[in-house]
Amino acid sequence: MATDYDFPTIADVRAAAERIGPHIHHTPVLTCESIDRLTGCRLFFKPENFQKVGAFKFRGATNAIFSLSEKEVRRGVATHSSGNHAAALALAAARRNIRAYIVMPDNAPEIKKAAVAGYGAQITYCKPTLEAREAGLNRIVEQTGAVFIHPYNNPQVIAGQGTAALELLTDIPELDMVIAPIGGGGLMSGTAITAAALSPHTKIIGAEPRGADDAFRSLAAGTIIPSENPRTIADGLLTSLGSLTFPIVSRHLERIVTVSEPAIIQAMRLVWERMKIIIEPSAAVPLAAIMEGSWNQRGKRIGVILSGGNVDLAALPWLDEKQISGHS
Amino acid sequence: MATDYDFPTIADVRAAAERIGPHIHHTPVLTCESIDRLTGCRLFFKPENFQKVGAFKFRGATNAIFSLSEKEVRRGVATHSSGNHAAALALAAARRNIRAYIVMPDNAPEIKKAAVAGYGAQITYCKPTLEAREAGLNRIVEQTGAVFIHPYNNPQVIAGQGTAALELLTDIPELDMVIAPIGGGGLMSGTAITAAALSPHTKIIGAEPRGADDAFRSLAAGTIIPSENPRTIADGLLTSLGSLTFPIVSRHLERIVTVSEPAIIQAMRLVWERMKIIIEPSAAVPLAAIMEGSWNQRGKRIGVILSGGNVDLAALPWLDEKQISGHS
Repeated sequence: MATDYDFPTIADVRAAAERIGPHIHHTPVLTCESIDRLTGCRLFFKPENFQKVGAFKFRGATNAIFSLSEKEVRRGVATHSSGNHAAALALAAARRNIRAYIVMPDNAPEIKKAAVAGYGAQITYCKPTLEAREAGLNRIVEQTGAVFIHPYNNPQVIAGQGTAALELLTDIPELDMVIAPIGGGGLMSGTAITAAALSPHTKIIGAEPRGADDAFRSLAAGTIIPSENPRTIADGLLTSLGSLTFPIVSRHLERIVTVSEPAIIQAMRLVWERMKIIIEPSAAVPLAAIMEGSWNQRGKRIGVILSGGNVDLAALPWLDEKQISGHS
Repeated sequence: MATDYDFPTIADVRAAAERIGPHIHHTPVLTCESIDRLTGCRLFFKPENFQKVGAFKFRGATNAIFSLSEKEVRRGVATHSSGNHAAALALAAARRNIRAYIVMPDNAPEIKKAAVAGYGAQITYCKPTLEAREAGLNRIVEQTGAVFIHPYNNPQVIAGQGTAALELLTDIPELDMVIAPIGGGGLMSGTAITAAALSPHTKIIGAEPRGADDAFRSLAAGTIIPSENPRTIADGLLTSLGSLTFPIVSRHLERIVTVSEPAIIQAMRLVWERMKIIIEPSAAVPLAAIMEGSWNQRGKRIGVILSGGNVDLAALPWLDEKQISGHS
């Protein structure tokens, strides 16, 4: 368990915003009349699909890397990831002109491998198991002396992710609720710390696929229940809460709303059709929660964090008969 | 041929901007580092896919309808269209609380029929030929006394379309070039009138599919050559220049660049992947021209009008083997 000292605060989020400001996009806030009409809410979308590398992950990775001293980063940084954190760390390392070592499962999509390699990171492939990934990472760290940057259970990563909510709540001050997807809990924790400090009356909601509802079950149980055999199209939300993110999320969240797979696909398609922006399935989970459930959200002003937009354009979920079965 | 009196001027564009301001979105200007690197240009995108009804057409339709007197609009407005102009006119009419009569070919996509009906327009179906459409429209106008609003060969429509360039050139003053797609020439004419007045050193470029290059051939011949059997995925660019748009385009355009079908699909996909926004094939034609040709565009600051984002998400061109044959 982390000590109190490790928990990021709003001061860390503000320092992160200052630190990463020159490197990131301050993303806009988008609204959509027709989705407001459909949901009966007033929604303020924070489109992190427009962030560099196409996801909020670049905020946390950049903050972590630029928080390190010259001496600390001398030997580079390392992580294991098959997703957006790998690309984010690779680009942030390139910006600081240091090496990045990424351990990726050998079955990662070619497009993700190419993106990480394109940012100049050194990739080590491993078998697609958590054990193989961690073993590969440990070997790299021992051999190179690189600093391990965890994708979410890291205070500087959490503080960096909080800058999205900081921008949102500064641009749109009077929100009744803010909702974000919850996977490992980095984005959710940063969002919670920020909203609790800036806007104490704003309720903080997590949105999670029902097929990967470990965070929902962890909060109910009062202890971390690891994600086992998660099954969801929201490939960014497969991970479990960590020793830093679990207590933050436990303390601040009003609730976690879980959603069905058809609702995720429907929400994703609705954003594509009505807002003309590309979001990935994980980013659609909060809107799915607003559309599917009934949890006192009607009529509210809600900030919705769209986490990313990296999706295989040749394999869209509504083109796959199996995925949309049961989806009216 | 129209009289000089009919040709819209920059004063008409400014008046249109004032008139339609409360009804339209002032769309932002987007940039993309990676596309700049790929093209060797500095591109400033004007995303009219974010405009109401998902296309610039709402500007012209709104200006035309709100330019009419109370007496003139008493009996409503009418047009024939299977595309974005129909939806634009229907919504603009609803905003002014008047009737809209739309003649649509019976083979129009269900999603377009539903959109037009959803805005409360009265739809009359006809056979999918220009003759049937015009006959249907004439009948409606005779029966109802509605005012016909032509999709592009109308001075108020042209002035309305020019407001996109007015916003772009006001937001980004020092452009070497501005490029827009050319179909019937309404957007191109409005863009040309505006750029010529506001920024005389900015070169005005048209972009056209090689499979529907009637504007290119018309300018070369010095007379309107009608579009015959056009074959292109850019379904918004099938129409021919009109008596108003031909002289405006002839006078102001530096050149028309024609592009291949694979280049259109490649440019469309590039925008989806890198910018995370949804544009329709017609909107990708200018970027295709920048990527495919060599016409002194390298190193230039270029305004690029993205005309719209209405596309069938279940039938993307890169999923169709035949469309991408020859596309490496």
